[in-house]
Amino acid sequence: MPKIDLSAVPVKTGSAYPGALSAKMDGRAQQRVGDAGGITQFGANLVTLAPGALSSLRHWHENQDELLVVTAGELTLVDDHGDTPLRVGDCAAFPAGDTNGHHIINKSSQDGQFLVVGTHTETETGWYSDEDMKVTIDADGFSFTRKDGTPLKGEEN
Amino acid sequence: MPKIDLSAVPVKTGSAYPGALSAKMDGRAQQRVGDAGGITQFGANLVTLAPGALSSLRHWHENQDELLVVTAGELTLVDDHGDTPLRVGDCAAFPAGDTNGHHIINKSSQDGQFLVVGTHTETETGWYSDEDMKVTIDADGFSFTRKDGTPLKGEEN
Repeated sequence: MPKIDLSAVPVKTGSAYPGALSAKMDGRAQQRVGDAGGITQFGANLVTLAPGALSSLRHWHENQDELLVVTAGELTLVDDHGDTPLRVGDCAAFPAGDTNGHHIINKSSQDGQFLVVGTHTETETGWYSDEDMKVTIDADGFSFTRKDGTPLKGEEN
Repeated sequence: MPKIDLSAVPVKTGSAYPGALSAKMDGRAQQRVGDAGGITQFGANLVTLAPGALSSLRHWHENQDELLVVTAGELTLVDDHGDTPLRVGDCAAFPAGDTNGHHIINKSSQDGQFLVVGTHTETETGWYSDEDMKVTIDADGFSFTRKDGTPLKGEEN
């Protein structure tokens, strides 16, 4: 059945971010609707943000195009240019290689939701705008390091 | 600016379908929000359907994954299994090669809208479920023929 039964798609909370950074993702819930629908060429996640929650740490991708559309609530896009409000039906696009780090914050008092799509690639590097951190993604999974590739130390761990 | 200024994105109406089939797409308006946002790895179109309008003729893709999310109104997914209602936030996925032909119809009395994403591939063949027609897409553009590859004749032209 092509319609995704959202009640049957696992709701993923928590974060893969290391150490204390993980707690910054409290209030975010994600459903991998692309995977649930048998799509393999790109990922599509339905993301629900409680008031105050973040979509991710602010970041940009080297290789993967990313695009989102808001489906509920009022959200705020935060990037190098500051805050931009997003309402239902609003779209935002983040071309691969554009170093304008971005994330979504729910600054409202009600839940917000968006669908985000990103290309599937075999490897990827993501760069964080507000931390000395990058993520390398390959067949072995995620690896978070400092931007120069050395291990994270201190309060991130 | 990552947010797409929808007021600046051209609204495309009409259809590339041949002959009398073209008129079946009356009431559909599309905005290429992925192109507008500089995305190249997949296409993303915001599609508005007036009451009675169709998203496309019922079809399936050989090579391109497709996924949609409803952003306004109440729409109906029509596929080999019949009618399935879709409301805001509902998603539907159409994996490449799945021969379950599908389209969206607005059977309500108000406009409906959805975002649809499809992978960009160099070539593609789409098969129509309710007509003796296929579409071949390559660097030269669209080519509609009968399913056996012979030219369309009769009332389609």
